[in-house]
Amino acid sequence: RFATFGSSVHKFVINPQPNPEERKLQSEPRRLYSATASQTDSSRKPFNWGSNKKHRDVKLRLQLLEAMTDPKIEEQLAPLREAVKEQGDLVRKLKSEGAPEIDVKKAVNELKARKKVLEDRELSLAPQVASFDRARMEDLLKRRFFYDQSFAIYGGITGQYDFGPMGCALKSNMINTWRQFFVLEEQMLEVDCSILTPEPVLKASGHVDRFADLMTKDVKNGECFRLDHLIKNHLEKLAAAKDATAELKDECADIVIKLDGMTKDEMAAILRKFNMKSPITGNDLTEPIEFNLMFGTQIGPTGLVKGFLRPETAQGIFVNFKRLLEFNQGRLPFAAAQIGNSFRNEISPRSGLIRVREFTMCEIEHFCDPQAKNHPKFENVADTVMTLYSACNQMDGKSAQQVRIGDAVASGLVANETLGYFMARIQMFLHRIGILPDRLRFRQHMGNEMAHYACDCWDAECLTSYGWIECVGCADRSAYDLTQHTNATGVKLVAEKKLPAPKTIEVTEVVPNKAAIGKAFKKDAKAITDALAKLSLGEVESIGKSLGEKGEHTLPVNGTDVKLTNHLIAVKTTSKTVHVEEITPSVIEPSFGIGRIMYSLLEHSFRMREGDEQRSYFSLPPVVAPLKCSVLPLSNNAEFAPFVKKISTALTSVDVSHKVDDSSGSIGRRYARTDEIAIPYGITIDFDTLKEPHTVTLRERDSMKQVRIGLDEVANTIRDLATGRTSWAEVEQKYPRFEQQEASAK
Amino acid sequence: RFATFGSSVHKFVINPQPNPEERKLQSEPRRLYSATASQTDSSRKPFNWGSNKKHRDVKLRLQLLEAMTDPKIEEQLAPLREAVKEQGDLVRKLKSEGAPEIDVKKAVNELKARKKVLEDRELSLAPQVASFDRARMEDLLKRRFFYDQSFAIYGGITGQYDFGPMGCALKSNMINTWRQFFVLEEQMLEVDCSILTPEPVLKASGHVDRFADLMTKDVKNGECFRLDHLIKNHLEKLAAAKDATAELKDECADIVIKLDGMTKDEMAAILRKFNMKSPITGNDLTEPIEFNLMFGTQIGPTGLVKGFLRPETAQGIFVNFKRLLEFNQGRLPFAAAQIGNSFRNEISPRSGLIRVREFTMCEIEHFCDPQAKNHPKFENVADTVMTLYSACNQMDGKSAQQVRIGDAVASGLVANETLGYFMARIQMFLHRIGILPDRLRFRQHMGNEMAHYACDCWDAECLTSYGWIECVGCADRSAYDLTQHTNATGVKLVAEKKLPAPKTIEVTEVVPNKAAIGKAFKKDAKAITDALAKLSLGEVESIGKSLGEKGEHTLPVNGTDVKLTNHLIAVKTTSKTVHVEEITPSVIEPSFGIGRIMYSLLEHSFRMREGDEQRSYFSLPPVVAPLKCSVLPLSNNAEFAPFVKKISTALTSVDVSHKVDDSSGSIGRRYARTDEIAIPYGITIDFDTLKEPHTVTLRERDSMKQVRIGLDEVANTIRDLATGRTSWAEVEQKYPRFEQQEASAK
Repeated sequence: RFATFGSSVHKFVINPQPNPEERKLQSEPRRLYSATASQTDSSRKPFNWGSNKKHRDVKLRLQLLEAMTDPKIEEQLAPLREAVKEQGDLVRKLKSEGAPEIDVKKAVNELKARKKVLEDRELSLAPQVASFDRARMEDLLKRRFFYDQSFAIYGGITGQYDFGPMGCALKSNMINTWRQFFVLEEQMLEVDCSILTPEPVLKASGHVDRFADLMTKDVKNGECFRLDHLIKNHLEKLAAAKDATAELKDECADIVIKLDGMTKDEMAAILRKFNMKSPITGNDLTEPIEFNLMFGTQIGPTGLVKGFLRPETAQGIFVNFKRLLEFNQGRLPFAAAQIGNSFRNEISPRSGLIRVREFTMCEIEHFCDPQAKNHPKFENVADTVMTLYSACNQMDGKSAQQVRIGDAVASGLVANETLGYFMARIQMFLHRIGILPDRLRFRQHMGNEMAHYACDCWDAECLTSYGWIECVGCADRSAYDLTQHTNATGVKLVAEKKLPAPKTIEVTEVVPNKAAIGKAFKKDAKAITDALAKLSLGEVESIGKSLGEKGEHTLPVNGTDVKLTNHLIAVKTTSKTVHVEEITPSVIEPSFGIGRIMYSLLEHSFRMREGDEQRSYFSLPPVVAPLKCSVLPLSNNAEFAPFVKKISTALTSVDVSHKVDDSSGSIGRRYARTDEIAIPYGITIDFDTLKEPHTVTLRERDSMKQVRIGLDEVANTIRDLATGRTSWAEVEQKYPRFEQQEASAK
Repeated sequence: RFATFGSSVHKFVINPQPNPEERKLQSEPRRLYSATASQTDSSRKPFNWGSNKKHRDVKLRLQLLEAMTDPKIEEQLAPLREAVKEQGDLVRKLKSEGAPEIDVKKAVNELKARKKVLEDRELSLAPQVASFDRARMEDLLKRRFFYDQSFAIYGGITGQYDFGPMGCALKSNMINTWRQFFVLEEQMLEVDCSILTPEPVLKASGHVDRFADLMTKDVKNGECFRLDHLIKNHLEKLAAAKDATAELKDECADIVIKLDGMTKDEMAAILRKFNMKSPITGNDLTEPIEFNLMFGTQIGPTGLVKGFLRPETAQGIFVNFKRLLEFNQGRLPFAAAQIGNSFRNEISPRSGLIRVREFTMCEIEHFCDPQAKNHPKFENVADTVMTLYSACNQMDGKSAQQVRIGDAVASGLVANETLGYFMARIQMFLHRIGILPDRLRFRQHMGNEMAHYACDCWDAECLTSYGWIECVGCADRSAYDLTQHTNATGVKLVAEKKLPAPKTIEVTEVVPNKAAIGKAFKKDAKAITDALAKLSLGEVESIGKSLGEKGEHTLPVNGTDVKLTNHLIAVKTTSKTVHVEEITPSVIEPSFGIGRIMYSLLEHSFRMREGDEQRSYFSLPPVVAPLKCSVLPLSNNAEFAPFVKKISTALTSVDVSHKVDDSSGSIGRRYARTDEIAIPYGITIDFDTLKEPHTVTLRERDSMKQVRIGLDEVANTIRDLATGRTSWAEVEQKYPRFEQQEASAK
């Protein structure tokens, strides 16, 4: 998995460690849609998610924090912590001694394996915070069309989802909140770049060569399997067999734990050792193949211009760096942002929205002077307390810690203020949209995981029933990306930095005698003077030498050798006073995966009514809830209709999205239906509404409490609630409570 | 061009008739990027647009309206009108007689040619409304990075554009206004569907077979040319030659006019007749080739699942019809909407944003009972006056007319209320974002242009320097799309309609003896009863016959023949009372091309200051302007800084996007810079601001008028201006005028 995880490729996919529940789910090999004979058979049942899975209660446990550790638990964990630390120390030693890369890598794999054992144990000992029924939630998501598999009537394709009205509204509210929070508040330069990207761009970024996963194919029918999944499934089956020896079980478990860090050759050896075959047909399998995860296509009619669907939005910002710098009047720092879709041709996507073939990203590239990574607004966020799981703690077998970001930057744990500022802002954003604080942590990449160019990298991870999921990456990428594109194009992607004081430098250059060159070369003269202006320092020196020795120099110009004599050119050294120097800016990159954040948010906000588990709902904050308000006439009495219309018009005029539900069904049943789609507030028109002064009831979703409120006030009150200008507590204080037993939804 | 223009393919691309200016621009053959040897040479100059073109003043003339015609002009046009009408009558006659399609087609081509001659003449005689300098506008768009060519540092690709900060903000404001105006106000069901689409979906929609343009290739180097462009360029060159006879000139002009309606064979004949060669190499050309405009790729690792980037967003809605109907609790009518990117692999895109390879669309599919296309809110828009250019007027050689939409529907000119309602709403939306009313018309498709399923179709066209550009299509597509997907998948995409009164119908069905079948077939019994339930009426009848004659029937079940005797099944006819019938809804589809609307809007709002043509700006309405406000300290005096910060914070807190420009440069120069990026309001902090009570100046972009206003009031005032709650006239009345000569920008 080296490509999606790292080295120099710009990356986002992560979560190498599914929790034990997840592993169980994955242990049944699933036939790849793309390889089945029935792929065009539309009557075929689509890949199922939601209610057709067995209902399973997933126990959610929070990771232990250093401060919270119970001595009894600590006792059990101590030997595991020690084992991690021992290995962590070995890794540090090897690195400091400059040991061969392969030895470091092996030691790191062992470290990761020990870390995983520790973390699994920690999780199993941690207090249970919630029991979560994923199947029931997915069933609700399907039933009310938050999202569902794309093209299901055609059999569907795995890894592709369509967002229905509620999912689409939730997504667009999340994106608008993001734009408000980052782009507008920070005055970032938002861009919207092409998705189809020509090959040379992605060659320079490293994606063409290294953005790949390993797979193996059935030699007879060509069916493909993602290599790590196949090995894991095979070994888990072996270990689960009745006749499996304790030794075999241990060996299998050990390999499964180390899989993520393995090289192609190591995996190939395991394939051979266990003589693995296709789990579907029993046929032989090919040697591991690197499969590039980008979707390829041809741009234009000739078929000669190869292009890819972008695997991330960041490159569009880098290739526009010069224009953006100019837009910012040449000044650093500035941040550019982009919201858009990216594409990855996963070998066998599953896990719902967590791993998909097309997805929406929000990316920021903050360009700054590499010598000045402080941030003017850092003091505003310095007191933010965050759960940090540092590389050091990971290597020492310790737990995550709660730290003031101000302290984390001061102590050097977080590399610089700008990185720390963005980490704090990321946390604030995630809290604002409803991610639960105790299910959010920032995990630092360990040295080996980090791309070689990155100074420091932290992932915001959300705890879900799939384990800790990377939702936002936040990396200091130094000058890597701009340098790569400069090298590939010859276009200098640099900024000018004013020197503290003007500097005098010696400049050696070739000075052309333009009149003489014009006379000698006529129409080719310009090409020659252009070529002379572009010479490197080394070339200038060699020309100087050549002129000194032979009185002439032969210069290739557009493929033709041109002989230039002392009469035509001279090499001169002069003193110049310069006020600026050119620098390649550093990039700090927060990168948000909207689908993953949305999935985590849905899990974090999924609730069941106490005593009536059939009534499930999403407790989404009003700011991202798909609709802000429902309008429910108590019955289909015709006298209610004009009030419904009046309220709907009033809500529209203050930009409050809402849904009128005048269908039959008890009011309780209709409340339950609006709860399911996360509508936070409900207005009911009842017989008292008909009397003057006209009033309605206003209900809050989570508490199910109601107040009685004037018809003319209700629209503005809901707008204020939805935009955070007032709170439900204030509304309850201001208006009389309305008591009514809610009928069950059943 | 039959595919992009019509028959049964769902389509959007149009504007077959570039105006004479545009034709001139196209007359120089342009070498296709995709075929040049230097395609990977990054030093190559990118395809240029903007300032490198010669500055040209394009004269904009409005089309004559019927009511406006001057008798003198009419005299000149009369013979041309007569020629069109004569041919229009012939077409009608041929159609009514059921003449062969080829004859109708030829007559229609001739009709179009005559119509074009008339329209060109009309335009040339119409009063000039504006002179427009496209090169200067494009120069500004590039210079301030509204948008520019994608991947320019890599040489760029034609037909792809990146939107910079201002273009991106304009685009996102347009989209948000659209969402507010259509999705929220009309409570539409917005969805967000996958871009990668498997082949069977687009096979059913007709795109795989018919979404193609004609091209020809250089037989030696494979270079591609769009066939109609090549022929046009060749003939225009011939006609422009010094030795061209009058006869040849006429022939060339005639062919160029008729090109749009020509078949593949007709174009092939022209290629041969004029012995056309590659304009680049002089090599021979291939016969015309149909080139499908969709970008193909493979989904998944096997390479066996073929997919395309969607060429429109509509299909995502159709394949989700069942889920959406269910979300709407089974009721009609309802509308679904989608905002997203689509892709078309144009053979040789040019004309800037008008014809590109990836673009954003906003599409609405309104599903309704085919028997009930009235609209409850039609009365609200009935008085809207619109410029309609009907098919009938086009065939009769008449001009466009101004008509109340209520009258247009009443007279049957517009097919139904729902279509009329959307046309009026489209116009209101376009006016709201700043499209000039006198440069907008609705052109009805003529019978032959219309897809065979469409009952009626009107395009909202904007007049630009490229001529009339189709920006929004609005079609009644009847049941075509749902029927196609039903046929392809076997999944019934229908709604249930309540019958006015219950109806008793005779139902003939196969009644299985379940116990006996269970006993006889054990585990296969279910498959058999399932198969029996799915039989068509014809099959039931033939089983009845077979049972009657032989006492048994052989039924294929999942590929195996099963013998069913009288003992196991019986065919019975019973009476049933039904309350509902199944109907396939009709679809009314407004489809917006955001890039084309944006381009038209930019042209319509481009202005130059009188007497100072260097000072150009965009007069965009505040609702779509990229930023609402600028904040300018008069100088870099340190005393101004806290006021700048205070105002910026206040603006952020009321969600007003703004830009602080504290760069050096005169205030006039900075105003000019903010005018260029269409910022409608500017706050200046000057020395009077320092005195109590603190005040600032507030300037309006178009009039350049200023008022003096309290520091504490300014943020709310701008929010009210930007959201339309107050007007500049009201602000001018309320606050004292501030007089200051604006320094020139030069």
